[in-house]
Amino acid sequence: MQATGRTSTIELRVRWGETDAAGIVFYPNYYVWFDVAAHELLRGRYERGFGFPIVESGAKFHAPLFPDEVITIETVVADLRTKALRLEHTIRRGGTLIAEGFEVRVYVKLLEHGIEARAIPEDLRNYLLQG
Amino acid sequence: MQATGRTSTIELRVRWGETDAAGIVFYPNYYVWFDVAAHELLRGRYERGFGFPIVESGAKFHAPLFPDEVITIETVVADLRTKALRLEHTIRRGGTLIAEGFEVRVYVKLLEHGIEARAIPEDLRNYLLQG
Amino acid sequence: MQATGRTSTIELRVRWGETDAAGIVFYPNYYVWFDVAAHELLRGRYERGFGFPIVESGAKFHAPLFPDEVITIETVVADLRTKALRLEHTIRRGGTLIAEGFEVRVYVKLLEHGIEARAIPEDLRNYLLQG
Amino acid sequence: MQATGRTSTIELRVRWGETDAAGIVFYPNYYVWFDVAAHELLRGRYERGFGFPIVESGAKFHAPLFPDEVITIETVVADLRTKALRLEHTIRRGGTLIAEGFEVRVYVKLLEHGIEARAIPEDLRNYLLQG
Repeated sequence: MQATGRTSTIELRVRWGETDAAGIVFYPNYYVWFDVAAHELLRGRYERGFGFPIVESGAKFHAPLFPDEVITIETVVADLRTKALRLEHTIRRGGTLIAEGFEVRVYVKLLEHGIEARAIPEDLRNYLLQG
Repeated sequence: MQATGRTSTIELRVRWGETDAAGIVFYPNYYVWFDVAAHELLRGRYERGFGFPIVESGAKFHAPLFPDEVITIETVVADLRTKALRLEHTIRRGGTLIAEGFEVRVYVKLLEHGIEARAIPEDLRNYLLQG
Repeated sequence: MQATGRTSTIELRVRWGETDAAGIVFYPNYYVWFDVAAHELLRGRYERGFGFPIVESGAKFHAPLFPDEVITIETVVADLRTKALRLEHTIRRGGTLIAEGFEVRVYVKLLEHGIEARAIPEDLRNYLLQG
Repeated sequence: MQATGRTSTIELRVRWGETDAAGIVFYPNYYVWFDVAAHELLRGRYERGFGFPIVESGAKFHAPLFPDEVITIETVVADLRTKALRLEHTIRRGGTLIAEGFEVRVYVKLLEHGIEARAIPEDLRNYLLQG
């Protein structure tokens, strides 16, 4: 993972309900956390009536997580296109790498029925590019 | 539980992700299933632009559920008021009673900002009262 | 709600994924938060090999919650029996009452197959009774 | 996606609670469904005490899904290694491609503390390779 832009870090505690009968975190919840991290980075940075729906995501899972464990999710704007951005997320528990993932999100205007991709505005671009 | 109106039954298989590190179903998922059952009973029975938001719910949990188990949820319209209804849900695995719960839902018109309680229309009342 | 014992308060921000197509929090997630609050209050207070499975829960929903809103959940040990406790949870957004709920949980020893209700030990009782 | 082995298809109806405030399915739920599909394909095919934890997953999202919509998930064993397999999942609503994803899962023996990768046994290999 190579930082090219804005980064943010959040800290979470694994909820009991995020685990499964194997005693470890059920893997779709990693994507829930990626989404939380994306909202943290983007909140308040774009106008009402716009959004960042997902078009692609993926993750590699290196080590399991257990109930009550505290983790950090470090997020970086790894790529910025005219109408899209790629976020890369790294989850760690202390010094241990737990998972790495990414999300590709497109900037859209919310229409009455559906959405329409738009160029990311200049001020938002500047925010996203700041290291 | 005393049937006074419409009943419906759905069958579900417990998803792996619905369990927790205790090896059994994480209890909020029972409410997820109640909501699924409520939608099953009400789907297509009221006009677009209306809804049935929840105002109260509750459940007693009699026995645990494990991954992959198949359950039935029997739902009955246990009470019908002018603007609200009470659904009672019974979850069984074969002959074993697993949980009992209820939901009180209010009939509302969806406004541009917010909602407004309305009298349940006659045809919907008739549907809900049929045993 | 009448405080009779230990209280704790947690603060949460509503996750995007906790909402539904009505634009507000999907109600089973209130129970997820009650469970988070229960773990917060009980964490580290009982021995490994024991647990507090749920036997009953319920909630009244007074006002909707929207994405990104910050809430507090105040939890109190409202009743303490030999082998069980009742937690009451109050969710507020600022000064606005959002929801009230409860959980009844039984203290159990985890056996190889199943569980066995046990008397809550003296030191745990003392902790739970402190206002 | 190129079928090289066992395929299975499941049908699901989108649950209300699987949507978010954008009115469409919250994307981590696609992974929940992939997991459901994986369990469907693998259920009863390996011995107690073994499992298939995830090591990598990913998805492309082509079109949104709305509450109550009925979808099919077609799963294929796209690659089979000594100790791992790759499942590819395709989600369609009628003739419309909604999403494509994959999961890489490793065959492991569950130990008292942790897990150990193992060669997939012959009978399971044969099952997984049948087209």
